[in-house]
Amino acid sequence: MANEVILLDTWASMFGMRARIALAEKSVKYEYKEEDLRNKSPLLLQMNPIHNKIPVLIHNGKSIRESAIIVQYIDEVWNDKASFMPSDPYERAQARFWVDYSDKKVYDTWKKMWLSKGEEYEEGKMELISIFKTLEGALSDKLFYGGDTFGFLDIGLIPFYSWFYAFETYGNFKMETECPKLMAWTKRCMEKR
Amino acid sequence: MANEVILLDTWASMFGMRARIALAEKSVKYEYKEEDLRNKSPLLLQMNPIHNKIPVLIHNGKSIRESAIIVQYIDEVWNDKASFMPSDPYERAQARFWVDYSDKKVYDTWKKMWLSKGEEYEEGKMELISIFKTLEGALSDKLFYGGDTFGFLDIGLIPFYSWFYAFETYGNFKMETECPKLMAWTKRCMEKR
Repeated sequence: MANEVILLDTWASMFGMRARIALAEKSVKYEYKEEDLRNKSPLLLQMNPIHNKIPVLIHNGKSIRESAIIVQYIDEVWNDKASFMPSDPYERAQARFWVDYSDKKVYDTWKKMWLSKGEEYEEGKMELISIFKTLEGALSDKLFYGGDTFGFLDIGLIPFYSWFYAFETYGNFKMETECPKLMAWTKRCMEKR
Repeated sequence: MANEVILLDTWASMFGMRARIALAEKSVKYEYKEEDLRNKSPLLLQMNPIHNKIPVLIHNGKSIRESAIIVQYIDEVWNDKASFMPSDPYERAQARFWVDYSDKKVYDTWKKMWLSKGEEYEEGKMELISIFKTLEGALSDKLFYGGDTFGFLDIGLIPFYSWFYAFETYGNFKMETECPKLMAWTKRCMEKR
């Protein structure tokens, strides 16, 4: 079977980054197609008619959508390399839970801080810090969320690092001070590049 | 290993139903603990401190949260019975996508119809019908979403059936007229009881 892999994405998207990291970890060769989100391509509208959103992975003509689902798909198809998923079902459930938690919480809380002033801004800021402290708690003293290896939850969370500068600037706080262990983890992840 | 399984749930919850159906499909014996959501038990707050929500599956003292994640966990742990998941990675990605789609769309759209009047009510109603037509399209001419067998996506979607009466009454439409194939699928699911 021909292995034609295309990623519809836009460079700044943290959700797209998940797909790109997963493809890189599995050494999958693919064609990257940058989308202009103000003028979406007919291919994007055809391949994701439900949400009209990137990222979309197109594998031999079939489209896979939603970043966490794309990462699991890549893991399951290119299974000659080590799995992103923990071998224990409970640890797998935990990894899925924390990716789901970050998807439900981070963006909405950031928007709350970003779009408001006064009390609501302060509330949003405190919530955002608390979310990352919670995620830091889930890391505990491990090297990576996947234990000794970089796994599904690491792939799910590390792209948020690209938002930290905005959080810190707009929220006037330092991730390093609030979440030192999480920041040490981001450094370990960055060394992988 | 002792297999102590407890489900924290409340009878009317469609998300709890997913867990109950998955446990029934795998013939897992478990203790059902009904939660009063206006007065949550210390056990619920301890086992789901992040969201304080049901359902929570407690397996040998460890908690698994979020209904779609619970269903996958049950599938992976009690793997002596047929898997809920399609064997093909693309079909698995599709099943995950449609469960995610229904989680993101149905409740919010129902709320939009339910809490509004006039134009917004009509808009919500049309959107709700369109969501179920989309889900009916994903069923196509198959017996179940899992093909010939009742699988992950069937478990994810069938509990919405318990909301249909409210949709029809409040929206003044008939699911039978709008989505006849989907309704035939609900009947096949109900015959499994």
